[in-house]
Amino acid sequence: MSELLGVAVLGAGHMGADHVRRLDRGVSGARVAAVADPDTARAKEAAAGIDGVTVHAEAEAALDAPGVEAVLIASPGPAHEEALLAAFARGLPVLCEKPMVPDSEGALRVVEAEARGGRRLAQVGFMRRYDAEYRRLKRVLDDGRLGRPLMLHCVHRNVSSPPGFTSAMLIDSSVSHEIDAARWLLGQELTAVTVLRPRPSGGAPQGLLDPQFVLFETDGGALVDVEIFVNCGFGYQVRCEAVCEHGSARAGEDHGLLLTTAGTAGAEVPQDYLVRFADAYDREVQAWVDATRQGRATGPTAWDGYAASAVAEAGVRALESGLRTPVDLAPRPALYTDTGR
Amino acid sequence: MSELLGVAVLGAGHMGADHVRRLDRGVSGARVAAVADPDTARAKEAAAGIDGVTVHAEAEAALDAPGVEAVLIASPGPAHEEALLAAFARGLPVLCEKPMVPDSEGALRVVEAEARGGRRLAQVGFMRRYDAEYRRLKRVLDDGRLGRPLMLHCVHRNVSSPPGFTSAMLIDSSVSHEIDAARWLLGQELTAVTVLRPRPSGGAPQGLLDPQFVLFETDGGALVDVEIFVNCGFGYQVRCEAVCEHGSARAGEDHGLLLTTAGTAGAEVPQDYLVRFADAYDREVQAWVDATRQGRATGPTAWDGYAASAVAEAGVRALESGLRTPVDLAPRPALYTDTGR
Amino acid sequence: MSELLGVAVLGAGHMGADHVRRLDRGVSGARVAAVADPDTARAKEAAAGIDGVTVHAEAEAALDAPGVEAVLIASPGPAHEEALLAAFARGLPVLCEKPMVPDSEGALRVVEAEARGGRRLAQVGFMRRYDAEYRRLKRVLDDGRLGRPLMLHCVHRNVSSPPGFTSAMLIDSSVSHEIDAARWLLGQELTAVTVLRPRPSGGAPQGLLDPQFVLFETDGGALVDVEIFVNCGFGYQVRCEAVCEHGSARAGEDHGLLLTTAGTAGAEVPQDYLVRFADAYDREVQAWVDATRQGRATGPTAWDGYAASAVAEAGVRALESGLRTPVDLAPRPALYTDTGR
Amino acid sequence: MSELLGVAVLGAGHMGADHVRRLDRGVSGARVAAVADPDTARAKEAAAGIDGVTVHAEAEAALDAPGVEAVLIASPGPAHEEALLAAFARGLPVLCEKPMVPDSEGALRVVEAEARGGRRLAQVGFMRRYDAEYRRLKRVLDDGRLGRPLMLHCVHRNVSSPPGFTSAMLIDSSVSHEIDAARWLLGQELTAVTVLRPRPSGGAPQGLLDPQFVLFETDGGALVDVEIFVNCGFGYQVRCEAVCEHGSARAGEDHGLLLTTAGTAGAEVPQDYLVRFADAYDREVQAWVDATRQGRATGPTAWDGYAASAVAEAGVRALESGLRTPVDLAPRPALYTDTGR
Repeated sequence: MSELLGVAVLGAGHMGADHVRRLDRGVSGARVAAVADPDTARAKEAAAGIDGVTVHAEAEAALDAPGVEAVLIASPGPAHEEALLAAFARGLPVLCEKPMVPDSEGALRVVEAEARGGRRLAQVGFMRRYDAEYRRLKRVLDDGRLGRPLMLHCVHRNVSSPPGFTSAMLIDSSVSHEIDAARWLLGQELTAVTVLRPRPSGGAPQGLLDPQFVLFETDGGALVDVEIFVNCGFGYQVRCEAVCEHGSARAGEDHGLLLTTAGTAGAEVPQDYLVRFADAYDREVQAWVDATRQGRATGPTAWDGYAASAVAEAGVRALESGLRTPVDLAPRPALYTDTGR
Repeated sequence: MSELLGVAVLGAGHMGADHVRRLDRGVSGARVAAVADPDTARAKEAAAGIDGVTVHAEAEAALDAPGVEAVLIASPGPAHEEALLAAFARGLPVLCEKPMVPDSEGALRVVEAEARGGRRLAQVGFMRRYDAEYRRLKRVLDDGRLGRPLMLHCVHRNVSSPPGFTSAMLIDSSVSHEIDAARWLLGQELTAVTVLRPRPSGGAPQGLLDPQFVLFETDGGALVDVEIFVNCGFGYQVRCEAVCEHGSARAGEDHGLLLTTAGTAGAEVPQDYLVRFADAYDREVQAWVDATRQGRATGPTAWDGYAASAVAEAGVRALESGLRTPVDLAPRPALYTDTGR
Repeated sequence: MSELLGVAVLGAGHMGADHVRRLDRGVSGARVAAVADPDTARAKEAAAGIDGVTVHAEAEAALDAPGVEAVLIASPGPAHEEALLAAFARGLPVLCEKPMVPDSEGALRVVEAEARGGRRLAQVGFMRRYDAEYRRLKRVLDDGRLGRPLMLHCVHRNVSSPPGFTSAMLIDSSVSHEIDAARWLLGQELTAVTVLRPRPSGGAPQGLLDPQFVLFETDGGALVDVEIFVNCGFGYQVRCEAVCEHGSARAGEDHGLLLTTAGTAGAEVPQDYLVRFADAYDREVQAWVDATRQGRATGPTAWDGYAASAVAEAGVRALESGLRTPVDLAPRPALYTDTGR
Repeated sequence: MSELLGVAVLGAGHMGADHVRRLDRGVSGARVAAVADPDTARAKEAAAGIDGVTVHAEAEAALDAPGVEAVLIASPGPAHEEALLAAFARGLPVLCEKPMVPDSEGALRVVEAEARGGRRLAQVGFMRRYDAEYRRLKRVLDDGRLGRPLMLHCVHRNVSSPPGFTSAMLIDSSVSHEIDAARWLLGQELTAVTVLRPRPSGGAPQGLLDPQFVLFETDGGALVDVEIFVNCGFGYQVRCEAVCEHGSARAGEDHGLLLTTAGTAGAEVPQDYLVRFADAYDREVQAWVDATRQGRATGPTAWDGYAASAVAEAGVRALESGLRTPVDLAPRPALYTDTGR
């Protein structure tokens, strides 16, 4: 290979700046061609020291900047729809951070726009699909040695939630990872959701329903349960056990370096998703760069982004009503029927 | 100590014969004084080679046999109520296999009879309370270092179910262990139950809803979920993770001797509850013998037996209706308010 | 069964009193008939509350007390030889705590005395042979699935050493457990020993060579290495990995209840051998009681006790000389050639 | 960053071709400028599809090719010395696969040549220093929480050895990884070595002394033992336990996805070092590219390469003589006294 892929990065916050660094020094085959952020000082800081990069306040200006051949969207969720449509209009491949579009109506408009174009341009940032252990889990489920999956038991814990985190965000921001992972691992759509609310932990901010216990049913008759606990205090833990007809497979068990000191023998628990999934982020962006340079699109699709939004919305309604809530998906455009899911 | 406690064993089937052996050679301080079984040939076989034992067809005859000071009930569940009331009438301490009484009405009659007597005579055979790991788990929850328990995630898997096992028996025979364990670990009563039914495993007998996923709510605001899977094919697994405000504690993870052979490193999974809980059974009977010889009663009470029946009945109704089903308990007699639960 | 086996316990110190309690209440089929200790107050205290027991200052008086049918020797090591010979003279079966006899000359005299009698009377208290995990390890090695054992990697760590513990005692008191375990697991004799001395830990008492690293060669061409570290500070750990031609098997890995708290996930490490091997001690004494009541002798033999002494002596010489030191065993009497080792 | 670092790769065999791919697509900041191999067809194949690359039969021609700013040596060991000296003569930074130079005399000439130049140019390919777990282990040892390291217990197992693998190669090819890892982890030099030879496994080729057990002593009084077993048949396992004054730290325990199937629960054991250390290789080359572009040199030095050769030579002598063999190192040039080791 030779020519580096010129990428416009939209959004220069925590995540955006991290992706700028990754494109510049963490993955091969790409270069940062433009950075956009309404806060141009922040955009300039992220772009500092990179040759040939331009800085913009407006997303569309960045898309039109010289040398831009692809877009990485890391701006806040509400800005995603407009950015995606603008990229599609220009025929630019996109890697879009999750949630693709926060509301499922908007997400569906993105799906329809891409489908009209007849060519896959968008990859959604569900990086768990690139985690080494999740990939092994997927492989084991797909090779059939354990028989049909019956249940997924998922655990998703964070040390603490950021300010302003709401009870609904446990579903549509946190559990959205499990929504995509379950759909991907099982190759099934989620059809109903129930949310149970144990008495909140004393470690949760006043008024936040934390933890929650979320149950999904699938169109294949499987059951997916998720403990979401965003103020657990003790570490960042993401686990998934697939219980199948002939065996079980577990990813995310605590492991790694074992330390024995007075009275205990154990492993360190990562405190942060950036630590736990550092390699997955790298692999995700690298896979996107490689595919894009070859004119292909792989990974999570806009349909996957839409489905995640639709399920999460049903989840929030289930949380509010306390009732089992069906999920209604729009018909799936033909563009997405032959994807790798 | 000196004099051995004379025990009448009611029932000489698989479990009864095992308890006869345990009393004779497995625990100290006791001797088998009488064995009763309608099939007296079976009773004789179990009693073979034991000095001073008498064999009976009728339970009451065994209770009245010379030297009988206590009773171990291992007959089929429907015979338990009559045997318990007969033991109470004679003032004999009882260790009664689970379920104490299969229906909660009968269980409540036993509770009331014991309460009328004003003295604890019955211990119910929830042997999981005597398992070394469950006891450590209980100790960790009680010492408060992890804060208040929020959720229990339980897994209960058997290799295969015996002939005649029904969908309701997954609840009232298998999950009854988790019902008691949850009440004991949390020190809370269960107030409602919901049963989810994923598509049955191909390994389950035709018509059996296996696995099931059972959700209990407690009067302390905790949530208890149980995967019950009695034809999992791969082993006998009983796990429990207590998720608390400041940490989590997990019992029953696969461990023990690690074997590494071509391509895999792992532990042996026990195939049978008699293997996994062998020590718990021994400890249970020994604890009962020791307490009885000192004129005391410890361990799971008749109230615990009643509560397990009542919750299991609600569970079966939840299985049949597909609805969340409240649990209604009778008022708790004063005799049981100061127990160790 | 009926009649209880009357046992004389010699020595009423920490270990002896524990065995008195075990015979009285921990195992079935036995009763304490006599207790002997030069400190008769201590003997009386251990025997308190036991019916029909007599207390003695002299070991031989206890052997001759009414109802004594067997002997458990838990007196200090230097008293063992005389007690064993006295028991042999009376035809009494013996369970003798390790070391059988501290010096290999005395141990050989015991072997020769028992061999002259033509009947196995002595079982040596190597309780690791009764540990559940070691038994699984032995079974796996014996069933041949892993092929021939090539190496044993052993770790033996104590929190701290008692006052007066010498560098030689790391070999002849601590490593003696591995000496017996290796001989038993491999079914081979140890033929040479080398002791390496890393710079002592700052946690070891002044002048104590702790840790040490001990290498044994066997007559089957296997290698056994032992880390012995008696002031490790962090817990009581006994591990053994058998590396074989087709796989490896590891016993004693830290396991049990898993606790996750801020930053760490792990297991509790036992701090004491009485905790770690509690079940093994119970099983050991029970096995001896059962065999004795049936007129049989099983378990570690006097020859095993002698071999352990002889190898430990060579080990101490290796420690002092810094050289590889061959082990010379006397010819094995025919009495011991058909044992279960 | 902008300009890509032009790298000449010497050697286009298995390892060299893998590095060409890594530089071209696996790491950022570098490009392959030249490939050299006496078998030019092989070199052409490795270079296929890369823009601006030239192909050469002679290493020196590649060093002089246009755009070459740095060298990666992946040719056979005997060719390394000449290639290193040629790179030094041109002032080119080098990443040299291990062994740096097979014999310690030649390795010392390389050290002296680099020291004369007064500037660090060489990094040796000890990729274990870049493995995530080893790095955590190093960090834990360095931060002092476990106190002074007393012993390292190492295990190094391969499924099978390639044709032509000799008994000496277990030391100078395989154990050389542990030689460097021990020196790096402890920050100490190895001063003596003893090699023990258990009876070879039936799985080893006729005449190969496999496994071996190697003991190193250090100038800090620590002990390093290594089980090297290159025909273990069951997997690729690299483990290291550091036993310290206040605790122990273990890297390389089998972990990852846990699979439970009939009778066993366990993890997959990788069968190959390229699988186990894939990330380490990527991190290694990336670190070298990044440092080189900034005009710095980090990582294992030529001195580390020399020390590994010298220790391995002593190890082979110890293997042949059966005796403890001291290691004699030349005086360390000042250039290497302030390195990160």
